[in-house]
Amino acid sequence: MNIKPLADRVVIKKLEAEETTKSGIVLTGTAKERPQEAKVVAVGPGAMVDGNRVEMEVKVGDKVLYSKYAGTEVKVKGEEYTILKQDDILAIVE
Amino acid sequence: MNIKPLADRVVIKKLEAEETTKSGIVLTGTAKERPQEAKVVAVGPGAMVDGNRVEMEVKVGDKVLYSKYAGTEVKVKGEEYTILKQDDILAIVE
Amino acid sequence: MNIKPLADRVVIKKLEAEETTKSGIVLTGTAKERPQEAKVVAVGPGAMVDGNRVEMEVKVGDKVLYSKYAGTEVKVKGEEYTILKQDDILAIVE
Amino acid sequence: MNIKPLADRVVIKKLEAEETTKSGIVLTGTAKERPQEAKVVAVGPGAMVDGNRVEMEVKVGDKVLYSKYAGTEVKVKGEEYTILKQDDILAIVE
Amino acid sequence: MNIKPLADRVVIKKLEAEETTKSGIVLTGTAKERPQEAKVVAVGPGAMVDGNRVEMEVKVGDKVLYSKYAGTEVKVKGEEYTILKQDDILAIVE
Amino acid sequence: MNIKPLADRVVIKKLEAEETTKSGIVLTGTAKERPQEAKVVAVGPGAMVDGNRVEMEVKVGDKVLYSKYAGTEVKVKGEEYTILKQDDILAIVE
Amino acid sequence: MNIKPLADRVVIKKLEAEETTKSGIVLTGTAKERPQEAKVVAVGPGAMVDGNRVEMEVKVGDKVLYSKYAGTEVKVKGEEYTILKQDDILAIVE
Repeated sequence: MNIKPLADRVVIKKLEAEETTKSGIVLTGTAKERPQEAKVVAVGPGAMVDGNRVEMEVKVGDKVLYSKYAGTEVKVKGEEYTILKQDDILAIVE
Repeated sequence: MNIKPLADRVVIKKLEAEETTKSGIVLTGTAKERPQEAKVVAVGPGAMVDGNRVEMEVKVGDKVLYSKYAGTEVKVKGEEYTILKQDDILAIVE
Repeated sequence: MNIKPLADRVVIKKLEAEETTKSGIVLTGTAKERPQEAKVVAVGPGAMVDGNRVEMEVKVGDKVLYSKYAGTEVKVKGEEYTILKQDDILAIVE
Repeated sequence: MNIKPLADRVVIKKLEAEETTKSGIVLTGTAKERPQEAKVVAVGPGAMVDGNRVEMEVKVGDKVLYSKYAGTEVKVKGEEYTILKQDDILAIVE
Repeated sequence: MNIKPLADRVVIKKLEAEETTKSGIVLTGTAKERPQEAKVVAVGPGAMVDGNRVEMEVKVGDKVLYSKYAGTEVKVKGEEYTILKQDDILAIVE
Repeated sequence: MNIKPLADRVVIKKLEAEETTKSGIVLTGTAKERPQEAKVVAVGPGAMVDGNRVEMEVKVGDKVLYSKYAGTEVKVKGEEYTILKQDDILAIVE
Repeated sequence: MNIKPLADRVVIKKLEAEETTKSGIVLTGTAKERPQEAKVVAVGPGAMVDGNRVEMEVKVGDKVLYSKYAGTEVKVKGEEYTILKQDDILAIVE
């Protein structure tokens, strides 16, 4: 991965919607209502506040939920990514 | 519960409207005017302010009232949750 | 009262409009122009500012004037309350 | 006066427009273009900033000019008042 | 002048447009495009920031340029003034 | 130049669009797409932040690029100037 | 390059869209969906915060991704540049 986000930004890659519901039924087709899940592929060095770096809370590889519409979509070498501020990440899914 | 909210975020699960009014009458059907009550299922580590964590005021299991429209609804493994900032929680109901 | 507001929030209960004008005339009916008066029923612990609690200025039992449209109306066990930030309370009426 | 404004709020009572112009002519009737003058009837304890009270600059009895549309109009025991933040008071007229 | 502006407010009196252009030609009539020039007639004590007064930069008698639409127009004893924050004054003209 | 801008304001004078492109071709007429270039004619003493003056980064004589629509246009003794905050100056052109 | 951006501003030059996709296919023509890539041509000295310069994170020569619509386009000697705040730069592409 050759994108280095600045400050408190994070680069994520949207995950394909998982095909299995809680009850174990496998869904196919297009009519699926899903959260915005993504995988963290790059993490900035953290914002500067009063001369100190604020350590980031997410790390590369984390699976996260994020605000729909947050961030900017970019396409680098044919791959689509979203670059957003860590504050637009709602939670880490484990 | 496998969602770890970031910073001062909280994950809540909407409660089914209680079926009993103050006078003890049991309501059935759909025409009920209700507050937004929910149960806290996960609590973030707290926001960072000037390099210190601000301790959270709610804890897992609390029953809370929250601002309608606050937060983001997500669906993880078929279950619906709302992720919001603690500041959007109005009060704890005991 | 079993609602514990968070931070600098206050729970109030709207007062019925008083029926007596300055001149002592008793008004009846619906055509009355009135301020938004309420009684404080619960008070939060105060906001955290730089790691310190800011003490609240209102207390349970105070009769207050508040900004129309301020706060969120909730219904708990059939009773209607308004939860607002202390800053939306204009004055205490004695 | 039994209204105790909170923080940096002030309670004022609109003054009747004075009937005399600079040239000494007495105006009667309704077609008069006038500033928003009022008398201060109650003063809050001052806002809290970083744990200290900020002393108020106006006092009860001051005649003040204030921003039209500022504040909230309330009616207490048949009398109309305006409650506004001191910052919405432009000047003291002596 | 009997208006005492609060905090960092300034009372100014609009100047009649000067009748002479750079080239010395005297303009008469109404079709003149002019800046907003005014004379300072009263100066507040300065804003309070962190418990200290911020000294004012303009003084009574200064001729100033100010943002059109800034401030509030008031009429005191038949005279029109504008009360604005010092920050709405662009420059002092000497 | 007899305009003394306050705080972090700067007075600039729009430059006539240069008539020569990179390739050396001289353009005449009106159909020219140009940046907003100007010459600094007066510089304020700098904004006050926490009781200290913030030194200005531009000086009289600098040729600058600035945000279109930024600032206020004034006419003093027949000459047109723009007064803007230093923060609306994008860059110095050398 | 003779543009010296102020504070935390950066001057960038939009890059021509690269003609090669991930799979190595060379695209020609106009129907290409591309991120906003640019090359940094000048970097400001950094913003002043509480009397200290905040060091810049990008340097001349960096290839960056930036928010579409961010910044101001200028034309100097026939060349087009964009001047934006470093905070509008999303990431460095290596």
